[in-house]
Amino acid sequence: MFENVSLSRRRIALLLEYDGTRFAGSQYQPGLPTVQGALEEAVLRTTGEPVRAAFAGRTDAGVHARGQVASFDTAGALAPEVIQRALNAWLPRDVAVLEAVEAAPDLDVRRDARRRHYRYVIDNRPVRPALDRERAWHVPGDLDVAAMDRAACQLVGRHDFAAFASALESPDAGTVRELYAFTVRRAGTQICCDLVANAFLPHQVRRMVGALTIVGQGRMAEAAYAALLDAPPSTAGPAAPAHGLYLMSVEYDAPLFATRLDSEVVVC
Amino acid sequence: MFENVSLSRRRIALLLEYDGTRFAGSQYQPGLPTVQGALEEAVLRTTGEPVRAAFAGRTDAGVHARGQVASFDTAGALAPEVIQRALNAWLPRDVAVLEAVEAAPDLDVRRDARRRHYRYVIDNRPVRPALDRERAWHVPGDLDVAAMDRAACQLVGRHDFAAFASALESPDAGTVRELYAFTVRRAGTQICCDLVANAFLPHQVRRMVGALTIVGQGRMAEAAYAALLDAPPSTAGPAAPAHGLYLMSVEYDAPLFATRLDSEVVVC
Repeated sequence: MFENVSLSRRRIALLLEYDGTRFAGSQYQPGLPTVQGALEEAVLRTTGEPVRAAFAGRTDAGVHARGQVASFDTAGALAPEVIQRALNAWLPRDVAVLEAVEAAPDLDVRRDARRRHYRYVIDNRPVRPALDRERAWHVPGDLDVAAMDRAACQLVGRHDFAAFASALESPDAGTVRELYAFTVRRAGTQICCDLVANAFLPHQVRRMVGALTIVGQGRMAEAAYAALLDAPPSTAGPAAPAHGLYLMSVEYDAPLFATRLDSEVVVC
Repeated sequence: MFENVSLSRRRIALLLEYDGTRFAGSQYQPGLPTVQGALEEAVLRTTGEPVRAAFAGRTDAGVHARGQVASFDTAGALAPEVIQRALNAWLPRDVAVLEAVEAAPDLDVRRDARRRHYRYVIDNRPVRPALDRERAWHVPGDLDVAAMDRAACQLVGRHDFAAFASALESPDAGTVRELYAFTVRRAGTQICCDLVANAFLPHQVRRMVGALTIVGQGRMAEAAYAALLDAPPSTAGPAAPAHGLYLMSVEYDAPLFATRLDSEVVVC
């Protein structure tokens, strides 16, 4: 009368920081170093279970994360704090689990995400940076940050961002997204572009920032920047390089984590 | 009647930024990657002349610089701006010349330096950092920054810092130094220790910061920290690791460079 009783599956959600420099992106690719591959290997060593990890946002090769969210399932009984410590012991030094929590078994870290915050960092010094060479995009010369901020603000709202999209992952999802904030400010010799939206299309942030620097250089009018929304798909840009981009945080209906990230945004 | 006329020698001073991670320190060592070695090779490619470069401050393996000063001599006529661009083209990506200027032929970048500013950065988050793993010392747990700042302030002044010194480079120079500022403040999850002195003994900053974290952890009284000055030579510490330390700037009687570095210090 006894049947095989499957152990109840638990879903563990992780808050991740990583340095994207060495990775071929967040998403698993056979034979290449990826954040997902590194995480799944660390989970296997921790729980003994082969898993597929889910990520809230896909990040390209070279893109960093200060608050990526991932999840995996386990049939084991390890406490989240124990899982966190074990993962940090097994993970390579350029990936860290900032927090691990027990999540609802039906949490979909990608579909259930309500807001994503990306930051793009420009190094505006005359000379190429040595220390931040993989942490910021070097754009020498005068940049009119006030003009960039005004131009950026025009794009806030619900729009079809197809002009800024590269090859779509899931064409069914369409190209309309809602941008909640897009601000540009100077911090010393750096310029920070903060973008918050319900979701972003592939390469959208990098193309929006790439075109915005042309406004900053005085080579494109602010109105022309807004008009890029009407350009044919995948024609606005050029895309800024990956290494200046950070996935700062992902928000859900209810907060998943207790960790406070240093990532306040000024809403325009 | 014609004699060999030696071309007039010029002294070029350089403002350097570097990432110390990959280097066995600033000072030339045969067969090892050093900042001096990289710079001398870039000068050879630029001017065709083999040179010995002088550095204002010696930095250990792993120590970074945002404002190191170096110099070399040349018999050539290249303008400083041309030298700067050529050096940046030849130097590896983890070293950059922020500025090059024509200096007085008798400038001794080491002996003529009046003040050195070092910054030590502590990452005070609970989990090891992925992005800043080579940029800050990870010290988890509560740190009483106000107590650290008060304790640090006691050491400002002219003192014999032998207790904090490791093997001396030039024992003749003695171990008395004048500390002009030593402040500790929190910036988000980081803690910045800023030290300004006429000069520092080898490992002095790292030992002073290493002992200071023990004050911050409540395991040493503030008065006991000041009393470390009376300890036998090379016994105060432990030394904080190299990768949290930055040589921020070096000052001379008259400013050598026009570049403004982001390195303001709060004087206690």
